[in-house]
Amino acid sequence: MKDLSIAQFLDRLASSDPTPGGGSASAIAGAAAAGLLAMVSRLSLGKGGDDAALQRALAAAEEARRALLDLAARDAEAFDAVMRAMRLPKGTDEEKRRRQSVLQETLKHAADVPLEVASLAVTLLEISGGLARTGTPNAISDVGVAVLLAHAAGQGALLNVRINLAAIKDPAYKADGAARVRTLGQRAEVLRDEALAAVEQRLS
Amino acid sequence: MKDLSIAQFLDRLASSDPTPGGGSASAIAGAAAAGLLAMVSRLSLGKGGDDAALQRALAAAEEARRALLDLAARDAEAFDAVMRAMRLPKGTDEEKRRRQSVLQETLKHAADVPLEVASLAVTLLEISGGLARTGTPNAISDVGVAVLLAHAAGQGALLNVRINLAAIKDPAYKADGAARVRTLGQRAEVLRDEALAAVEQRLS
Repeated sequence: MKDLSIAQFLDRLASSDPTPGGGSASAIAGAAAAGLLAMVSRLSLGKGGDDAALQRALAAAEEARRALLDLAARDAEAFDAVMRAMRLPKGTDEEKRRRQSVLQETLKHAADVPLEVASLAVTLLEISGGLARTGTPNAISDVGVAVLLAHAAGQGALLNVRINLAAIKDPAYKADGAARVRTLGQRAEVLRDEALAAVEQRLS
Repeated sequence: MKDLSIAQFLDRLASSDPTPGGGSASAIAGAAAAGLLAMVSRLSLGKGGDDAALQRALAAAEEARRALLDLAARDAEAFDAVMRAMRLPKGTDEEKRRRQSVLQETLKHAADVPLEVASLAVTLLEISGGLARTGTPNAISDVGVAVLLAHAAGQGALLNVRINLAAIKDPAYKADGAARVRTLGQRAEVLRDEALAAVEQRLS
C-alpha cells in the first residue's frame, strides 16, 4: 500500500471494493499526523528549547509513522481475511462449526489492528500537546493539523474496532475490547482538547 | 504531489522543509474522506434506496476528491511563494514597498487555498449526513471515518487560513476572511455532530 501513489490510493478508497476502507484511511491519517509532528520537531531543534525532549518527540513520531503505514496495509488484509471466512462453506454442521471458528479468529485480528492504530493515535496526541507548548511558533498551525488528524485517526479506528466487536462472540474478548475502546476514546478527547487549547493560545 | 507514493509524501511531510505541511495534509485528508464517501455511495447503489440521491452524492464526492487533491499541491505552491516573497530585498524604501506588496498578494493566495479546502470539507460533511442515514449499514463505519476526516480537513484548513490572515494588512480582506472562518468552522461542527449522531444510531 505504501508504494501506491496518493492518486492510486484514493482511487482504491473510492472504488466499490470494500478494502482499503475506513480502517486504512484512519491509519494513513495517523501517519500524516506523525509526519507533521516529526517536521515540527525538526524545525524546533536548535532554537533554544529543550532539544533532548524534541529529539524524543521526533523519535516517537517517526516510530509511530512507520508503524501506522504498516497498519494501513494490515487493516485491509485483516478485513479481506474476514470476507474470505464469510465465504467458507456452511452446508454441514462440521462446516458451520469450522467456518464460525475461522470467522471469529479473523474478526479478533480485524479488531486488534485498529486498536493498535487508536493506541498510536493517543501517543501522537500526547506528543502534540508537548510540541504545541514548546515547539517553534512558526509551525503552530502544523501542530494543530496534527492534533486534528491524530484525533480523527484514533476515533476512526475505534469505530472499526466496535464494528468488529459487535460480531465477536467470546464474552471476555468483547468486554475487554469495549473497555479499551472507552478508555482510548476518552483519552483521545481529553488530549485533543488540551493540545488544541495550547495551539489556540499560541495562535492568537 | 498526487504522483508521489504514500511513503514519499509522508517522508516529505516529516522533513524539515516546511512544504508540504499542514495545509497539504488537510487537503489530502479531505480527499480521503471524499474517496470513502464515493465508496459508500457505490456500495449503496441498487439496494432499494434512493439511487438518484446516491448518484448525486457519488458525483459530488468524486468532484471534491479531484479538487482536494489539486488543492494539496496548490497549498504547498502558495506557501512557497510566500517564502520567496519574504526573501525579496528590503534595503531601499522602494524595495521595501515592492516586497510588502508582493508578500501581501502571496499571503492572500495562501489564505484563499485553505478557504477552498474548508468549503469542500463542509460539502463533504453535508454528503456524509445523508449517507449516514440512508447508505448501506455494512459501510456505516466508513461513513463515520469520512465524517472525522472531513471535519479534521476543514478545521485544519481553517487554522492555515487564520495563520495567513494574521499577516495580511488589508482590513476588508481580513474582516471578510475572519467572517468566513467563523461561518465555515461553526457549520463544520454542527454537521459533524449531526452526522456522527446518525452514525452512532446505526452502529448500535
